Amino acid sequence: MVKTYSKNQLERYPVYLKVLREMREEGERFSASSSIARRLGYSEEQVKKDLAAVSPTLGTPGRGRDISSIIEDIETFLGYREMTSAVIVGVGRLGSAILDYPGFADMGLDIVAGFDSDPAKIGTNINGREIYDVSRLSEIMPGLKAHICIIAVPSAYAQSVADMAVKAGATGIWNFAPTHLSLKKGVIVENVNLASSLAVLSHRIKTNLKED
Amino acid sequence: MVKTYSKNQLERYPVYLKVLREMREEGERFSASSSIARRLGYSEEQVKKDLAAVSPTLGTPGRGRDISSIIEDIETFLGYREMTSAVIVGVGRLGSAILDYPGFADMGLDIVAGFDSDPAKIGTNINGREIYDVSRLSEIMPGLKAHICIIAVPSAYAQSVADMAVKAGATGIWNFAPTHLSLKKGVIVENVNLASSLAVLSHRIKTNLKED
Repeated sequence: MVKTYSKNQLERYPVYLKVLREMREEGERFSASSSIARRLGYSEEQVKKDLAAVSPTLGTPGRGRDISSIIEDIETFLGYREMTSAVIVGVGRLGSAILDYPGFADMGLDIVAGFDSDPAKIGTNINGREIYDVSRLSEIMPGLKAHICIIAVPSAYAQSVADMAVKAGATGIWNFAPTHLSLKKGVIVENVNLASSLAVLSHRIKTNLKED
Repeated sequence: MVKTYSKNQLERYPVYLKVLREMREEGERFSASSSIARRLGYSEEQVKKDLAAVSPTLGTPGRGRDISSIIEDIETFLGYREMTSAVIVGVGRLGSAILDYPGFADMGLDIVAGFDSDPAKIGTNINGREIYDVSRLSEIMPGLKAHICIIAVPSAYAQSVADMAVKAGATGIWNFAPTHLSLKKGVIVENVNLASSLAVLSHRIKTNLKED
């Protein structure tokens, strides 16, 4: 049986990781769920449950658990300890920011190449990654053994890029274009939708003001 | 009584808006929940419930509802029809991408100024927005009547920037730094956490492969 995790729960693991690493840097060696909960504003019960699901080793009562071993367990769970190759399509401002971000390698994501339709970008390289003509995506992608395609093109092109990527072997799409993608079953799509995030922020500010 | 909306539900409204605008551009005037549901892969029941919550006008049986009036209702609900001012702190690659993105104005968000600590950036302007020294945030922000602060600085600086912004009158923080912010009650924080989004994608790909 495959254990299931809710989306919200999965989203919390990188946050735990961040806090645990900070604690370790501050010189702490052991941690109790209560102190992690306090730092994050989560309930202690939730922290306990989340950590137990991916890092079942027991702690010493009164002292908590070894921080480094929890970090290791979360990193393993999140796949940070094995590299997955990805390509990115669209290297405008947003795509370049993604290519430039050093943090993804630590998360097990290796962006191996970029694609764009702009002749001024094709043939250049960004941070050591070659930028190819997007029309060559289905030809080049299989040889790169990349199974994740990051989409950072304007909305109008996102669906056709996704279709090409899936034909070329993508099993996961990380979609930064603010549009819905329809893909065959078995292909995982995770959307980063800034409009949706902004909608949540604006609505919560408005409701908050009304309640005051 | 203030109606409450779940985070997931709020996140869906910009997606409805997108699809309804596409339908209108394709020449459709009326829409039934069933066709919206089909385009998005949502259940018809959910579409009906979501739309009824913000756009209660009844449709004509068999013909559906006037698309333009649903669009107008969602835009009003999301606050797209009134402008809110924001500042952005951190205009590196990510911050510049955000400043450059033309879509936010249509969502009612007017980014009026940027702040950075890099002397090469201070005094320049990006897309017509002046970039100021971040040390002047609390002095300049109140005069701009900006109540949202977008944070696009490295994690290590995010908390101190947020603290300054709140002192200068921010009631909402849109946080792009991959770190948890602790702020006083009444300040709304919405995080855009790419590590969390990637965690969801990677886990779902892994689980999917196991299930195949």
